[in-house]
Amino acid sequence: MPLKKVCKMDNWLKKRASLTPKRMALSYHEQNWTFAELQQAVLETCTHLVGQKVQTAKRVAVLGNNTSQLYFTILALQQLGIEMVLINKNLALPEIEYQLHDANVDLLIYEDEFQSKLQPLKSMTLISLNDLHDSISADASSFIKDEFNLDQVTSIMYTSGTTGNPKGVMQTFRNHWSSAIGADLNLPVTAKDTWICAVPLFHISGFSIMMRSLIYGMNVRLYEHFNPELINQDLLNGKGTIISVVPYMLKKLLSLKDSDYSEKFSYMLLGGGAIDRKTLEICKDSNINVIQSYGMTETASQVVALNLADAIRKLGSVGKPLFPVSLKIKGATKPNQIGEILLKADNITPGYLNHSAPITNNGWFATGDLGYLDADGFLYLKSRLSELIISGGENIYPLEIENVINQFPNIIESAVVGKADSTWDAVPVAFIVTDSMINLKKLTAYLTSNLAKYKVPKKFIVVDKLPKTHNGKLQRKKLQSQI
Amino acid sequence: MPLKKVCKMDNWLKKRASLTPKRMALSYHEQNWTFAELQQAVLETCTHLVGQKVQTAKRVAVLGNNTSQLYFTILALQQLGIEMVLINKNLALPEIEYQLHDANVDLLIYEDEFQSKLQPLKSMTLISLNDLHDSISADASSFIKDEFNLDQVTSIMYTSGTTGNPKGVMQTFRNHWSSAIGADLNLPVTAKDTWICAVPLFHISGFSIMMRSLIYGMNVRLYEHFNPELINQDLLNGKGTIISVVPYMLKKLLSLKDSDYSEKFSYMLLGGGAIDRKTLEICKDSNINVIQSYGMTETASQVVALNLADAIRKLGSVGKPLFPVSLKIKGATKPNQIGEILLKADNITPGYLNHSAPITNNGWFATGDLGYLDADGFLYLKSRLSELIISGGENIYPLEIENVINQFPNIIESAVVGKADSTWDAVPVAFIVTDSMINLKKLTAYLTSNLAKYKVPKKFIVVDKLPKTHNGKLQRKKLQSQI
Repeated sequence: MPLKKVCKMDNWLKKRASLTPKRMALSYHEQNWTFAELQQAVLETCTHLVGQKVQTAKRVAVLGNNTSQLYFTILALQQLGIEMVLINKNLALPEIEYQLHDANVDLLIYEDEFQSKLQPLKSMTLISLNDLHDSISADASSFIKDEFNLDQVTSIMYTSGTTGNPKGVMQTFRNHWSSAIGADLNLPVTAKDTWICAVPLFHISGFSIMMRSLIYGMNVRLYEHFNPELINQDLLNGKGTIISVVPYMLKKLLSLKDSDYSEKFSYMLLGGGAIDRKTLEICKDSNINVIQSYGMTETASQVVALNLADAIRKLGSVGKPLFPVSLKIKGATKPNQIGEILLKADNITPGYLNHSAPITNNGWFATGDLGYLDADGFLYLKSRLSELIISGGENIYPLEIENVINQFPNIIESAVVGKADSTWDAVPVAFIVTDSMINLKKLTAYLTSNLAKYKVPKKFIVVDKLPKTHNGKLQRKKLQSQI
Repeated sequence: MPLKKVCKMDNWLKKRASLTPKRMALSYHEQNWTFAELQQAVLETCTHLVGQKVQTAKRVAVLGNNTSQLYFTILALQQLGIEMVLINKNLALPEIEYQLHDANVDLLIYEDEFQSKLQPLKSMTLISLNDLHDSISADASSFIKDEFNLDQVTSIMYTSGTTGNPKGVMQTFRNHWSSAIGADLNLPVTAKDTWICAVPLFHISGFSIMMRSLIYGMNVRLYEHFNPELINQDLLNGKGTIISVVPYMLKKLLSLKDSDYSEKFSYMLLGGGAIDRKTLEICKDSNINVIQSYGMTETASQVVALNLADAIRKLGSVGKPLFPVSLKIKGATKPNQIGEILLKADNITPGYLNHSAPITNNGWFATGDLGYLDADGFLYLKSRLSELIISGGENIYPLEIENVINQFPNIIESAVVGKADSTWDAVPVAFIVTDSMINLKKLTAYLTSNLAKYKVPKKFIVVDKLPKTHNGKLQRKKLQSQI
């Protein structure tokens, strides 16, 4: 009788605190915790959760800034085997209500700052983090999981689909494990690294840093929110070796940088959307290693990434599928053919909450993103399938046009969307942000000499800024309504 | 419908050659191969294997020194999805025959050096590595696996059980994967590392280095056999950063060392049995980091290891169970209680070939080794439950030798125990009961032709009878005191 595959692992926090108790685990403002101290703080939080009888809940929602208290609370819920719904702090109340209702959650743990916003919530138990930590405590030891069941869900994050209501992405321990291992095999993290976490813990970008910290035994420097001046100082002073950024954060940090970061600094891990080539070239000239990556909530963070050796040579690519990840382009039979990106890996969510439909097709997860692989196997992203503009039968990828527009003098950024057209079905229209007057004729001439005619926007709309989500993602839908 | 767990991964060699084609993969004598070149050499070997119609075999045995040809051949068989039986080159012909028969193998690929030893083998196809590489080639591309099925067996290594005949330990891709990941989370390997492989590829100690190389993208410096003078020079010259050793190798290297190794040198990974504290202290004084570890063929290499921070503080311990490994001491309720070491991890073999008995007890694999955990969770090994003798890193199981001795004319019974030895750590010594005079020269010649040299007892003690318990069980401990 063959041995069954292992479906359980020792509790990660326990294991990590046992393996490297004295190694640094967390830095927040002026405070530091070793893994033994982190475990202590988390167990303390567990006693308050048990004091409030939270251990009987199947699922609990959390809402807050990136504070040490939120960090401990997330890990404490994981210790107790409770599924967490990570609420985006920027949501409006009806959006929060929708997610709580959809996830069938009746307990929300929140940071005091959000009290007034949450006031109208009825039929819901609310506990503020401060109240929790002042509350009565009870022995939690019998509720702490000795083992993590790898196929159990530990975190749920809502993503807005293109078809209306947001869906809860379920993430299992195995998803987070596979994600951490794949990232480490690409860019090994050592005990000397400190990962700066200024991306939200309620996003997979931040949450995955916590999980990596436990799995690798790595220090995390946590910031309440993205504070570019402080982070710039800390990078100059060698207080972090790796930082996760989205394009907006990268540009902001670049604008502040007036001397080289500490030699301890290793790289910026860039996710959350495409970035223009110009910015990447400035980074190169400023001695900043930028590792482009590609991943999403459904893949528990990165599945494709560059490595340091290729970062400059393949500027513009998001890299190659990580070692444990299989990737193919739907329908492509040779390099450079564009199609939907399909993935297979233990990173991939078992599904969306309350949606019974299988999320994969013959074992492949369809990302809804368009891209192509070059002859060396590097992935280049085109737009979302849903953002594709089909004009007279020709595919137009907004990103491609934006990259060209952005290289024109005085253009800060741009966004291209499709406008319905009776002749061509759709034509491209560009929104541009500039820092001075633009000569439209010159711009059109420039574009015409660099792009196929059907790709040249038929109309240009100058705006003060582009509508974006709080993590810097462009909201094309909002633009579409402004045409 | 939830997504199924991933049971397949992209072919490791293909993936690695795609991810880091230009990174160094293998060094042998003065030759070097990048991963792209390694893949080329392996594919070339595949074409010869297919030319010989080897792809139709389910299982193939290989026998040789640590040459680049053997390296390519092992990887080539893996590319074709053929299970390999790794034959210990030190075995006597009857031992080899037993394994080939037990594994139902009818093809043996061997190095020319072993031709005369193998001559008497009947009913067996033999191909020498030289002949193979000179043979006709055929298109192998359709036989190369695109994916590795993680639960498929890729390697089989025989270990002698306590009950006489050796058993074939089946190792799956998942076993090797889990082993590589656990080791990397303990001591991260980077692209700057070169792992010296002077332990045999037919042992899990050597084979696991090959697998790590593919998974990490790490260079391996391969030595035909353990050549201490050359390796000492290479360590002085910074040609390797990590080296796997058994106690005998460590002591030999220590005896040659007259100045510090290159500053690039990182650590020696010590497996294959306990080592005396004095030697470890000499290493410490000589600025050699020694990482003690514990593992076996059944666990696809290390499952317990020290890390650099604890190596000196916990001298004498083999470390803590690696991140993906669960360990407990049978029956122990508190620290320092000795009991059998039990393990749970994806490292652990699905079982022994042709043995239907489950190898685990409630999901735990019983190692047959005795040990204890100290209050900090560090594992200390005591003697093997079965009185295993470890000589120069090789396992010697007394019963196996006794079975051979007992077949010699006029020997009534025998008992083999280990005697401490400063060179080999331990050597076997035999107690024999006879019914007439024995010619010692003839006995030694007989054993030498039937057993690997290291298994032949170094001393024979004739006794009237063996000490036994009332129900007839041999009391080895009593013999040990009589050596």
